Amino acid sequence: MFSVIMAGGSGTRFWPASRNSAPKQFLNITGKGEMVIETCDRIKPLSRDEEIIIILGREHLEKANHIFKGRGVHILSEPEGRNTAPCIGLGAVYARHLGCEGPVAFLPADHFIADVSSFLEVLGLAEDLAEEGGIVTLGIVPDRPETGYGYIRRDNGALFKNSTVYRVMEFVEKPDLDKARSYLESGEYYWNGGIFVAKPETILNEIKVLLPELHRGLQQLESAFGNDGIEKALEEVYMKIEGVSFDYGVMEKTSEKVYVLPCNCGWTDVGSWESLYKMRAQEYDSGKNLVEGQTLLVNCEGSFISAKGKRQIACLGLKNCLVVDTPDALLVADLSLSQDIRTIVEKLKMEKKEELI
Amino acid sequence: MFSVIMAGGSGTRFWPASRNSAPKQFLNITGKGEMVIETCDRIKPLSRDEEIIIILGREHLEKANHIFKGRGVHILSEPEGRNTAPCIGLGAVYARHLGCEGPVAFLPADHFIADVSSFLEVLGLAEDLAEEGGIVTLGIVPDRPETGYGYIRRDNGALFKNSTVYRVMEFVEKPDLDKARSYLESGEYYWNGGIFVAKPETILNEIKVLLPELHRGLQQLESAFGNDGIEKALEEVYMKIEGVSFDYGVMEKTSEKVYVLPCNCGWTDVGSWESLYKMRAQEYDSGKNLVEGQTLLVNCEGSFISAKGKRQIACLGLKNCLVVDTPDALLVADLSLSQDIRTIVEKLKMEKKEELI
Repeated sequence: MFSVIMAGGSGTRFWPASRNSAPKQFLNITGKGEMVIETCDRIKPLSRDEEIIIILGREHLEKANHIFKGRGVHILSEPEGRNTAPCIGLGAVYARHLGCEGPVAFLPADHFIADVSSFLEVLGLAEDLAEEGGIVTLGIVPDRPETGYGYIRRDNGALFKNSTVYRVMEFVEKPDLDKARSYLESGEYYWNGGIFVAKPETILNEIKVLLPELHRGLQQLESAFGNDGIEKALEEVYMKIEGVSFDYGVMEKTSEKVYVLPCNCGWTDVGSWESLYKMRAQEYDSGKNLVEGQTLLVNCEGSFISAKGKRQIACLGLKNCLVVDTPDALLVADLSLSQDIRTIVEKLKMEKKEELI
Repeated sequence: MFSVIMAGGSGTRFWPASRNSAPKQFLNITGKGEMVIETCDRIKPLSRDEEIIIILGREHLEKANHIFKGRGVHILSEPEGRNTAPCIGLGAVYARHLGCEGPVAFLPADHFIADVSSFLEVLGLAEDLAEEGGIVTLGIVPDRPETGYGYIRRDNGALFKNSTVYRVMEFVEKPDLDKARSYLESGEYYWNGGIFVAKPETILNEIKVLLPELHRGLQQLESAFGNDGIEKALEEVYMKIEGVSFDYGVMEKTSEKVYVLPCNCGWTDVGSWESLYKMRAQEYDSGKNLVEGQTLLVNCEGSFISAKGKRQIACLGLKNCLVVDTPDALLVADLSLSQDIRTIVEKLKMEKKEELI
């Protein structure tokens, strides 16, 4: 099976570790290597390196070429981000260009999955369904009324007897807490992890109908593959096309062929320092501190100290504190407020400290 | 008037800003220059540079020569610290060697005084009393039941009618909170700031009687002054003599000539980051934060951020937090626990990280 790893986008939620030059997907924040590499390695049982297409922003191309040096993965760069529909379309036409006729898995590069074998099992099932012409999305089984994710509502009965395949009834935006609670209770809602499987042909046919302008662009790109003109073609096409998400532009409008497979695989999008801290609970010390690097702790509790530099860090009496030390910037924060880090980044922008962002 | 500035001793209470190589008295922690310089500058109206003798540890001699370059102050270095009695004796014999016959002020180099004119006024009064043969100590009028200082108990009546001169009844060690409260209520107790005034002759006569071994050492030193042998003599004498405080070795045992002058001059020994924070209240921002250096604060309260390096520091949602950033070490602590920093320093010692201490 081919896989398209979607590694575009910049991110500031892990500032100061993440910067425009090194967003989350290029960071080793889980302690297991850069997330984009982890994403490739995770699907090894399904996709060989030669079957992997990584799509990322041009500003990260050099970095990606470096970290994937010697591996046979294919790397494509977008001149500018245009949301997921163009990215997925590009992945589909490029997979076809490489000779792929069967299903392709589309995977965000910056998510964490604890139970890889469950994940691969569901992905294998998705492959079978996609072979028949479906667009199959993975529905992450929720374990809490999370308000930070979009949801997928399934049909109330399975597609086949004794199966766990459902038609998708609706994609819903991030809910408020009351709604999230009712979603959780109903058992009919899953988190939308942005992971799905479909054949290039299926996807491109849908795009042709629903996003005809994008489809024309993709045809233009396809004819440039194999020539020297690919970068130029990408520039031209990306200047013209509109940015739109695949969920909104395609999935919501073509629900007949869209299926959801429940997946219970310890998935998280690792959206903040706090969620990273919670995710790595098995690494806590006796005071529930998560500590990376040369750090000396005295009477600290529930704190996350990330010190990957050479400096000595000493912490005394901290409670639920976040300390992230990098060579040119230091963050000290209340760990539970780590989603507000964008405020810091916005202020740095206003102060024109571009080199720190 | 001559002044002896006592600048010996190492300190770890301001780690990581203070190190063995740069203890508090050589730091600019009050924002007004190195404390030892501030101490010299403060007494300018009473002592010209040529009348100032600075006594410090040999390890800081080079630094002191550097920061006092071009000023006519006299600098003496002790081969090893031996507490205050030998230091004061050395100051007394050296002042006499420089031709001083009148009173000498002995001043710790690492204290802060907010109201300098009140301080100098009391010091002038002390000079007059010392001229008559007294040993005059300044009694800092307490404004709270502080358990971190020693106290001086005065006689319950003044020495002269309408004067504020009292005989010293007792020097008392750091009290517990109950005792400190009763001291404060009684009105008869002052904080012992370690500041006093006496003629060299008065001091040396007392030392001759009470610490005869030290007196012999001081005679040996005195005869070496003006020769090349002063460093060697200091080595020899300091190897032999016992370390003892002037309070314990002399003042407590000779109370007849010992007077205390109440002094209300905004004195503090700046004993911890927290006390430094409290002292500098006039520099707080609207959230009662004290901020030094390139720091970006969002929703912080009552925190002290000292960032004198070049790194960008960002703080988010901190309450009563202390952040001290230096090029090779960073401290993040609960500000109210800043007196426990010694625990950190002890641990670094155990880990043999001498370069950080």
